[in-house]
Amino acid sequence: MVCRFYSIDFRTSGEDDFVDVTKEVLECVEQSAIPAGIASVSVRSTTSSIVVCENEAGLKEDIRDALRKIAPSEKEYRHNEAWHDENGRSHVKATLTGQGITLPVTGSRLLMGQWQSIFLLEFDVKPRTRTVDVAVVG
Amino acid sequence: MVCRFYSIDFRTSGEDDFVDVTKEVLECVEQSAIPAGIASVSVRSTTSSIVVCENEAGLKEDIRDALRKIAPSEKEYRHNEAWHDENGRSHVKATLTGQGITLPVTGSRLLMGQWQSIFLLEFDVKPRTRTVDVAVVG
Amino acid sequence: MVCRFYSIDFRTSGEDDFVDVTKEVLECVEQSAIPAGIASVSVRSTTSSIVVCENEAGLKEDIRDALRKIAPSEKEYRHNEAWHDENGRSHVKATLTGQGITLPVTGSRLLMGQWQSIFLLEFDVKPRTRTVDVAVVG
Repeated sequence: MVCRFYSIDFRTSGEDDFVDVTKEVLECVEQSAIPAGIASVSVRSTTSSIVVCENEAGLKEDIRDALRKIAPSEKEYRHNEAWHDENGRSHVKATLTGQGITLPVTGSRLLMGQWQSIFLLEFDVKPRTRTVDVAVVG
Repeated sequence: MVCRFYSIDFRTSGEDDFVDVTKEVLECVEQSAIPAGIASVSVRSTTSSIVVCENEAGLKEDIRDALRKIAPSEKEYRHNEAWHDENGRSHVKATLTGQGITLPVTGSRLLMGQWQSIFLLEFDVKPRTRTVDVAVVG
Repeated sequence: MVCRFYSIDFRTSGEDDFVDVTKEVLECVEQSAIPAGIASVSVRSTTSSIVVCENEAGLKEDIRDALRKIAPSEKEYRHNEAWHDENGRSHVKATLTGQGITLPVTGSRLLMGQWQSIFLLEFDVKPRTRTVDVAVVG
């Protein structure tokens, strides 16, 4: 069994930023030189998330719309009463989209579909630095 | 460490099809003969997803309803302007439900609850062939 | 390769209970004495889920609100016609939030962010005993 860890910091531009981390994750998996196994990609955060989707500008707007419907900006959030950082909606969106994905690794490459990209989604209301962890076991 | 991969193709009937893949996934885990570890089940797609739920016809309709509320058919999707394949809503639903699940394996069996089934959810607007990957490490 | 399994039962108070299972999961990972690998945390259920979020009372209410909007109590659920247990909405919420999370393990500790807690979310309409599985491989 080999296990390799990588942590990569990404700077986001703030609310609703989609950061495509696919290239960096693929490089970690390749560097691991693990021929067969699985890789978990996760973010150490409660106001951002990791999802898989197509990298297409219009789609990003559609996903933002859907999440705004679930957690609208104009709603009063009880979380804001505790911290006054106005990111109640960010927490809700992050919780519903999730903090990680696990994918198969073969030939030191992630098994991904042609249109799949891995995104770090920023929901916080200001720019943040996010640590994405890539763990490859095999 | 042993790692075994299986890829299984499923033909779906198109939008909102629920394909129960539990039996096929369990067979992969059994064939792996890995006594203890974890299994990741994922789909190489951006318009379908993998979820765990009960296999009950009414519930499938309820889940379809909830997802239609998040991403209604009658909405204009910006993604459709890029590709004109009218599946903007399919991408949104797939992104929010996710492309994989990881479960424990013991005695060459998945540790699942009595009512849990693994489903491939098709959201694309036409029938598709989907590749589901099962990776067992242990 | 080492693989260690732990199953922990939690008693929930019923619909919309948030049970913080972080401490118990961290103890499992520590007990495993696995220096480097990944841990999967999952629940054997179709009416509860595992999510990561901040442990803050107001936020829990905000998340409940968002999920009630997706699967309102007052809606008629077709699932209820099959079983008459009035938990159609519980199944929908559980399916959309997911039954597991996988996180990296290093130094026999989960790699988690400062504000991240792991929650078992109960959606069923009555108190339940839930089995949470922790599988550590590395």
